[in-house]
Amino acid sequence: MRTEPTPSRRTFLGASLATASGIGLAGCASVSASNQVSSSLLARGRNVLFQGDSITDADRDRDHAAEPNVQPALGEGYAWFAASGMLTAAPNSGLRVWNRGVSGHKVFQLAERWQKDCLDLAPDVLSILIGVNDIWHSKSGNYQGTVEIYERDYDALLTRTLQALPKVQLVVCEPFVLRCGAVQDSWFPEFDQYRAAARRVADHHGARFVPFQAMFDAAIAYAPPEHWAKDGVHPSAAGASLMAQTWRDVVEGRRG
Amino acid sequence: MRTEPTPSRRTFLGASLATASGIGLAGCASVSASNQVSSSLLARGRNVLFQGDSITDADRDRDHAAEPNVQPALGEGYAWFAASGMLTAAPNSGLRVWNRGVSGHKVFQLAERWQKDCLDLAPDVLSILIGVNDIWHSKSGNYQGTVEIYERDYDALLTRTLQALPKVQLVVCEPFVLRCGAVQDSWFPEFDQYRAAARRVADHHGARFVPFQAMFDAAIAYAPPEHWAKDGVHPSAAGASLMAQTWRDVVEGRRG
Repeated sequence: MRTEPTPSRRTFLGASLATASGIGLAGCASVSASNQVSSSLLARGRNVLFQGDSITDADRDRDHAAEPNVQPALGEGYAWFAASGMLTAAPNSGLRVWNRGVSGHKVFQLAERWQKDCLDLAPDVLSILIGVNDIWHSKSGNYQGTVEIYERDYDALLTRTLQALPKVQLVVCEPFVLRCGAVQDSWFPEFDQYRAAARRVADHHGARFVPFQAMFDAAIAYAPPEHWAKDGVHPSAAGASLMAQTWRDVVEGRRG
Repeated sequence: MRTEPTPSRRTFLGASLATASGIGLAGCASVSASNQVSSSLLARGRNVLFQGDSITDADRDRDHAAEPNVQPALGEGYAWFAASGMLTAAPNSGLRVWNRGVSGHKVFQLAERWQKDCLDLAPDVLSILIGVNDIWHSKSGNYQGTVEIYERDYDALLTRTLQALPKVQLVVCEPFVLRCGAVQDSWFPEFDQYRAAARRVADHHGARFVPFQAMFDAAIAYAPPEHWAKDGVHPSAAGASLMAQTWRDVVEGRRG
């Protein structure tokens, strides 16, 4: 358990921000400002690492893996869309953004490559999106996973990370699916338990939590599930753009 | 000339925000917070209208034009990407987002359809991106435009808008190009003068200015011009995502 700000501390800070930032001067409540919870994790010169599975990988070019910030190295998904937004918003920030997502991976496979693909990179901000393969590959008979294994392995991975990198800022992204394509009714309610496990792991280690499932649940009011992820798992460009915005909102302290 | 906050007033508010919002508590300067300039324009229940040419149009479906917020009506470009970000960030905000961009249009063509496609919709927030066709169609011999005509017509359009809708919040988006595709060296330095004219018009009417050219000038450090807009004019999904993020940063008061 970390001693970083707890949820209640964050709420207190959020209230202070809303009160002190002069929003009332405009004569109306701001839709976004009311969600502010804390400060941005993107201080000058920070090393930002995206980790995960195919959703993070997004066809990144391994030949460019040694270069931060460039599109081939970051792929074509939410990590790249978020990175380009961060980098152009503050061109002189000295941020270095990396992607080490690998298609098909589950939590135990992150652990197998964690020294090289995470700890050796010494990120200041570490964002992880993992879980959909833990259930998908189990449902398809290629893996014998359970929610308990997922939570145990994920928790151990973050404990190990914080032992090696005590100052790292953790970002845990909620696993999500759209109800279409490869996603079957038989995934539920088990999938909801994976999401809840990710949330518990985040809370246990003081990580910021990016609510991708809640975001997509809201998004289907405006476009059908297939618009966001044709197969229910891998986001379209529109889905990736939405994820990038939500990720930045959370990481830059604009929502909880 | 409006009596809305002037740039210097905005800077003052921005300084207050940075000082009062407790950023220092994190022990480091935030990359994004340092750019905060003012409050969000997206108060509850606001009517947000995107206007412009093909970049805004982005293949929107006219059959859905009477419906706010839905993807078919908003197209597949930056307006939709920004709308989905705003709407999912605050699902109960009551925001209504509309798109009335029309491919090929120049400023005088906005004026021709302004009553029906803008004033009758009574937007609370009006965002306009116009200008690339004013130079492009002139260079290709299909229109006899000049920077002076662009600025005069654009200025008149905003004067007319503010007379009809004195409380509207204006957002002027910087015309932009990438140096590839259809964009020729012969466009310069004239194109830079169109950009400067848009900026003057924005300042004259107290509009927020979205610096899309500056954004893309920064973005080509991370991916080549063709990645952002294959023909130099019409953004890719990555380009649209970047625009949506920058648009939201400005409109929601996170940068100037």
